[in-house]
Amino acid sequence: MNTLPLGEKLANVRNAHPLVHNITNYVTVHDVANIILACGASPIMSDEPEDVEDITSICNALNINIGTLNKRSIDAMFAAGRRAADLGHALLLDPVGAGASRLRTTTALELVASFKFTAIRGNISEISTLAKGSGTTRGVDADAADAVTDANLDSKAALARAFAAKTGAVIAITGAIDLVADSDRCCAIRNGTPRMGTITGTGCQLSGMTAAFLAANPEDTFTATVAAICAMGLAGETAEKALLPGEGNATFGNRIIDAISLMDAAILDKGAKYELL
Amino acid sequence: MNTLPLGEKLANVRNAHPLVHNITNYVTVHDVANIILACGASPIMSDEPEDVEDITSICNALNINIGTLNKRSIDAMFAAGRRAADLGHALLLDPVGAGASRLRTTTALELVASFKFTAIRGNISEISTLAKGSGTTRGVDADAADAVTDANLDSKAALARAFAAKTGAVIAITGAIDLVADSDRCCAIRNGTPRMGTITGTGCQLSGMTAAFLAANPEDTFTATVAAICAMGLAGETAEKALLPGEGNATFGNRIIDAISLMDAAILDKGAKYELL
Amino acid sequence: MNTLPLGEKLANVRNAHPLVHNITNYVTVHDVANIILACGASPIMSDEPEDVEDITSICNALNINIGTLNKRSIDAMFAAGRRAADLGHALLLDPVGAGASRLRTTTALELVASFKFTAIRGNISEISTLAKGSGTTRGVDADAADAVTDANLDSKAALARAFAAKTGAVIAITGAIDLVADSDRCCAIRNGTPRMGTITGTGCQLSGMTAAFLAANPEDTFTATVAAICAMGLAGETAEKALLPGEGNATFGNRIIDAISLMDAAILDKGAKYELL
Repeated sequence: MNTLPLGEKLANVRNAHPLVHNITNYVTVHDVANIILACGASPIMSDEPEDVEDITSICNALNINIGTLNKRSIDAMFAAGRRAADLGHALLLDPVGAGASRLRTTTALELVASFKFTAIRGNISEISTLAKGSGTTRGVDADAADAVTDANLDSKAALARAFAAKTGAVIAITGAIDLVADSDRCCAIRNGTPRMGTITGTGCQLSGMTAAFLAANPEDTFTATVAAICAMGLAGETAEKALLPGEGNATFGNRIIDAISLMDAAILDKGAKYELL
Repeated sequence: MNTLPLGEKLANVRNAHPLVHNITNYVTVHDVANIILACGASPIMSDEPEDVEDITSICNALNINIGTLNKRSIDAMFAAGRRAADLGHALLLDPVGAGASRLRTTTALELVASFKFTAIRGNISEISTLAKGSGTTRGVDADAADAVTDANLDSKAALARAFAAKTGAVIAITGAIDLVADSDRCCAIRNGTPRMGTITGTGCQLSGMTAAFLAANPEDTFTATVAAICAMGLAGETAEKALLPGEGNATFGNRIIDAISLMDAAILDKGAKYELL
Repeated sequence: MNTLPLGEKLANVRNAHPLVHNITNYVTVHDVANIILACGASPIMSDEPEDVEDITSICNALNINIGTLNKRSIDAMFAAGRRAADLGHALLLDPVGAGASRLRTTTALELVASFKFTAIRGNISEISTLAKGSGTTRGVDADAADAVTDANLDSKAALARAFAAKTGAVIAITGAIDLVADSDRCCAIRNGTPRMGTITGTGCQLSGMTAAFLAANPEDTFTATVAAICAMGLAGETAEKALLPGEGNATFGNRIIDAISLMDAAILDKGAKYELL
């Protein structure tokens, strides 16, 4: 059933090496930069409102992550978003913690109302908050009660497709099972390992890498998003298998970036586990 | 003499997986997030004054670290501190660099005057500065002349107990020998290795992890603090023993987080080295 | 031809363990702190204008890196720069992204006009921008068309010497071939590996480490800068040779810091590859 050209999407990133402007949180920013490099693109970070328009103008994609938002960086998100939208750049939103505070929920909703994002990636609680226009979440983690499971796959897929139709964005809901939807398709992805939830930043890294995939594959943003998510999950699997006795969370995190840097089209096509619903 | 139930305190963190709000510096924040996850808790970072009250409300502990303070984050520290205090959350202060600048000293002193911290953790120079109400330190490192040694153990323990009595907080002074005191007890800890001083962030990580231990063990914050400090020192010892030829500081740092992620109650109880003075 | 006393410069850092104040970007700040520690110095970070004068006063060097500049940190750069200049401290500028935005170009040019830097380190595009007073660059990476090669070595060396004469600073242009110049000498360095361009932060780390070398070797800042650059490149070579199958970018990055922490004067003198032009 592996009929989507995922490996090709990775190869396109390595050939085009797009430049990705990131307005992101300071917790995971180093890993975001490194995974963007590891997949073949280049990162640049800037969150000063007076700097972001120039910076985003020379880039190919803008990755907005609200993980440690502040008033200055929020202004920068809107200024950069306007410029990126004007230039037709790939535009990704990672609504970290939407539902956990009024500022995060409001900011994410205003961003979605202001720009046509190419893709929006979050956990189920964050995406549900944006789809409903309000919500509550437990910090930056998804509520277990909301999790995408085989039992509720169809209803969660319907939620993703409906939000995709409303926003015009590819919607990516990541968790134990990942969903990627546009207005009429949905793909379920089963790569990855629970250990990825025991380190910080796999979601942020995935968003940064997805922005690079979107920039290098403008003709098929749905498949580009599926490819990035499969690549991240597969890297997690590879990293886990490589762990030696005595190695734990930090080494696991490093090995994920290692695996992305060593991944090529054939590895991705062979390891991807997904189904079109 | 290992009579304190340290392993139980770690087990409680892994069972309760408390959520820790961190207002911390951007140098070591990634490691702070990862060690909080590695010990079984969850981190969230927010330092925008308009965001912190909502965020801290859904958490179980607040870790305030002034390592790269600025006017916005100082406002956030006080706003979050008030909310956390109102809600009875575990509240920890890491006064990084108190004594090294007027702003750091003043901010730390005002925080201590404003809130009843559950614990305050710093090096001997920082804690001495707060206890005396003024001081000078060499950057973020303790002055060697101040170090806790076997020769001055009683007088340093008296300082710690007195400052604990004054503030109502558990006082943790970390260095080659660590001291943990409340108003009438003091414990000296001899885990750890000098190599921990050759990488950045072991102190910040310890503060974040201690906040998690405090949140999961509200009935005995003294023992919870001892447990966190023994766990960190033991992880340093484990990391050092695991180093292969050609491996140095960065690998050592990763192996500390690895060791915490693999530590359980039995390992901690077996490896802890402390004495009640 | 290895006639410069490079190993001695490293030994001086390990003996003097200078304190380096960094106003730097939040992407690579953790690695900057760790490499400063790995070479034998100590880092402190502060970018609040009300804090930086006190902090820089207790330090021996100031490292200004504009990688994620904002209005607050720009104010801090000038306030700290004035104090460091008054105190005769080593003063280094890393003009990250100069040429990529008006704010970065203007800020870097104003810094160069305001202070006599001990050294300025950047890629060829950034240094060319500063030397010409304007320019455009592709994000934070050097334009391939500008690269220093054997074919244009003399003209690039002339550019470096001229900019050194104009500013009074040691000028370091880093890339596949690195150049270090003062007003009448230029040294070409051929340590390093292309893989160093596939991770974030080797340039920022080099700047931080160079600031430490400058502080510990005030009598010969030209040789100190050559020593720091050779050390970084040699660490990259060592890290690459140590990579095992399945290890990629993140492990490579860690091994660079490992190699610096294990490097001594003899290793540096033996591995340095440079020529005085």
